[in-house]
Amino acid sequence: MLGQNGKLGYAGVERAIVIEKKVHTRCFEVMESDDDKFTGDNKCYMDSILAMYRENLIDRTKHHIGYCFNLDFDYGALANLQHFSINNLGDPFIESNYGVHSRQFEVGVLDWFANLWEIERSDYWGYITNGGTEGNLHGILLGREVLPDGVLYTSQDSHYSIFKAARMYRIECVKVDTLISGEIDCSDFKTKLLSNKDKPAIINVNIGTTMKGAVDDLDLVIKTLEECGFTSDKFYIHCDGALFGLMMPFIKHAPKVTFKKPIGSVSVSGHKFLGCPMPCGVQITRTNHINVLSKNIEYIASRDATITGSRNGHTPIFLWYTLNMKGYKGFQEEVQNCLRNAQYLRDRLRDAGISAMLNELSNTVVIERPADEKFVRKWQLACQENFAHVVVMPHVTIEKLDEFMNEFVEKRPSWYDQDGPPCLASNVGSENCACAMHK
Amino acid sequence: MLGQNGKLGYAGVERAIVIEKKVHTRCFEVMESDDDKFTGDNKCYMDSILAMYRENLIDRTKHHIGYCFNLDFDYGALANLQHFSINNLGDPFIESNYGVHSRQFEVGVLDWFANLWEIERSDYWGYITNGGTEGNLHGILLGREVLPDGVLYTSQDSHYSIFKAARMYRIECVKVDTLISGEIDCSDFKTKLLSNKDKPAIINVNIGTTMKGAVDDLDLVIKTLEECGFTSDKFYIHCDGALFGLMMPFIKHAPKVTFKKPIGSVSVSGHKFLGCPMPCGVQITRTNHINVLSKNIEYIASRDATITGSRNGHTPIFLWYTLNMKGYKGFQEEVQNCLRNAQYLRDRLRDAGISAMLNELSNTVVIERPADEKFVRKWQLACQENFAHVVVMPHVTIEKLDEFMNEFVEKRPSWYDQDGPPCLASNVGSENCACAMHK
Repeated sequence: MLGQNGKLGYAGVERAIVIEKKVHTRCFEVMESDDDKFTGDNKCYMDSILAMYRENLIDRTKHHIGYCFNLDFDYGALANLQHFSINNLGDPFIESNYGVHSRQFEVGVLDWFANLWEIERSDYWGYITNGGTEGNLHGILLGREVLPDGVLYTSQDSHYSIFKAARMYRIECVKVDTLISGEIDCSDFKTKLLSNKDKPAIINVNIGTTMKGAVDDLDLVIKTLEECGFTSDKFYIHCDGALFGLMMPFIKHAPKVTFKKPIGSVSVSGHKFLGCPMPCGVQITRTNHINVLSKNIEYIASRDATITGSRNGHTPIFLWYTLNMKGYKGFQEEVQNCLRNAQYLRDRLRDAGISAMLNELSNTVVIERPADEKFVRKWQLACQENFAHVVVMPHVTIEKLDEFMNEFVEKRPSWYDQDGPPCLASNVGSENCACAMHK
Repeated sequence: MLGQNGKLGYAGVERAIVIEKKVHTRCFEVMESDDDKFTGDNKCYMDSILAMYRENLIDRTKHHIGYCFNLDFDYGALANLQHFSINNLGDPFIESNYGVHSRQFEVGVLDWFANLWEIERSDYWGYITNGGTEGNLHGILLGREVLPDGVLYTSQDSHYSIFKAARMYRIECVKVDTLISGEIDCSDFKTKLLSNKDKPAIINVNIGTTMKGAVDDLDLVIKTLEECGFTSDKFYIHCDGALFGLMMPFIKHAPKVTFKKPIGSVSVSGHKFLGCPMPCGVQITRTNHINVLSKNIEYIASRDATITGSRNGHTPIFLWYTLNMKGYKGFQEEVQNCLRNAQYLRDRLRDAGISAMLNELSNTVVIERPADEKFVRKWQLACQENFAHVVVMPHVTIEKLDEFMNEFVEKRPSWYDQDGPPCLASNVGSENCACAMHK
């Protein structure tokens, strides 16, 4: 049987066409049979690929500790919905003639989050997005529509979608320094605000940075704005709560993200802490902000204030199901368990003489970047400069952490000569660095 | 059992809070039990809602003829992949450390489309999007990055996502008139091009408009650009192929969308003609365009040239599965069947003395808007001004069309007084209008 390009392919064709940075790697070709109809050969090809792929997924899921996705979920009860084409076209609060939707579930989930972030049902608007990035794109767009001449401030450790939004929307973007912990440096923020005093400010506040799990001090950000003379009509705050936006409410004494403070929008990822087979997220904002956006959009004959228009109708049902299954108490237990396991990992790393940092209220352990690409790939660690991180999600058990640590400790001596591992003081602080000079 | 807001709720609480245009309609609340743990009550509540919802989906799917979604698919073979968290983070052609992805399938699907639209593997870049809107947002963004001072031209019948993109990206947007068929009026296009001669042109070409299923004449658009003195470095064409981009290649004598013509990008929806449980789409562009975008994005430390970043890894597998199952021949048969059934519907409407228009090569039958909201909602018809449309997709059989027509013909006399139905000449042309004056 021949593939479209005439090559014989059964279990995927290995190709390596490198153009600039585009690599045409391993791919499963679509097979076109010579006969008119679907044949047994096609079926056999597809079955073998799917079986192999499933094996691979099981293996990759097992060794997954580097990204903040919760892989511990069971949606078996929803399997019989998979063959419906569920589409929540446009606004969740505006009825559409398309009947195969799940708005009832979507609004139920949104109400739950509105309650969590303390905003009345009549005062909020929101929708279920395709993930954290879409929430950020929407939040920053709202900021720009509310303050068309606003300058965007965000820390250098922010998720890249924030910088992408600035570029997409043609907003001037000012990068603010961070502390070693990864938090925004409010003294640098102050300096930069003062040198742009005549323009309104759009601020992205990280409720958990991607790499270090650092939480920007929302209260200090607001205080800084006020000290610099920005009244609440001159700033718009979007909170990127990708992972921690959903964990912090369940941690006692954690600073609060709430609409009782002068914030404009909060977004969170649904596939991260909650766990979902596909990326999704929640975006909540104030009704008066969305009215600014909708008004403008109405002019061009659309009542759709979302980014994507046609929207996945399955993810609201997944989220609704999880929220019902777990409830506040269930989340509280899971969060505490994650924090405990993260502390366990940090302690094991320290005992083994390996650089490690764990921010307060965080489940992200920043570690020395293993100098072995195979090891990094096996454990799917996200890396930056000299460091990597382990995100201790609900599916990351003590047993898995032990397996990881044992392999790390066993292999590590072979990675370095007598100079030992690199210094990480500038990334994690000298007190957390275990290089020859600092240990 | 009480819901979070203290209301008793079992099968959803009816609420009607109307603020501006936000309607808090029927919603299934998330239930919080008073006990620490998940209880039998919760389970019972969830089961009853899910069962009721499933019944409703079956009913709504049965009466679905108004939107261009193919509801005829069977992905049972993929059911055992549902519980994996599959995420194609970022660029499909750049390896990521996150191992639970489906890039192999994604690249296979992209290769198939590249082949369909006649562009070499080394010359194209693309990705699987969350739907038609994301493809359009990406295509227009590419146009702006390639031609930063470009003016966007698009017909007034274009999908609203095009106007949304112009607003988001702060691009000057010029709306071009349409012919009665819904096609772009190239003489108006010429006039408008000539009055902006000093600025490059970004053009959105509709390969099937949403409401009338009209196909813009790509060749005439290119000819018009050339006649107005625009050389190929001074324009960028994005083709919004939402539905027809995938149907036209299978229709003999249909004008061709191909990268052998000077176009910059093509996007298509995957949940429309192919059928998929959730919205998705395919976006294909030229490698040199994406390099312009990537280069700029690299400056802000991201290698991600997609809009959404984290991406649904299940949809590439659905698409790959369908493409393998059906193949070129299978699609050809389905397309011909749809066109035949659309002609059947138009003929039945004409015979019944009802205004109707069917563009050549189209499966979208434009009809008089039924003056009965209940009937419109039952059949899920998308409406605009005085007209509505029926999109004859593969799941819309002759039997279903007969059921629709019989009900239409039976109920219609009660909707009008002696003046009869409204005139639709300005929407469908006098030759297709069946009002008292034109029939």
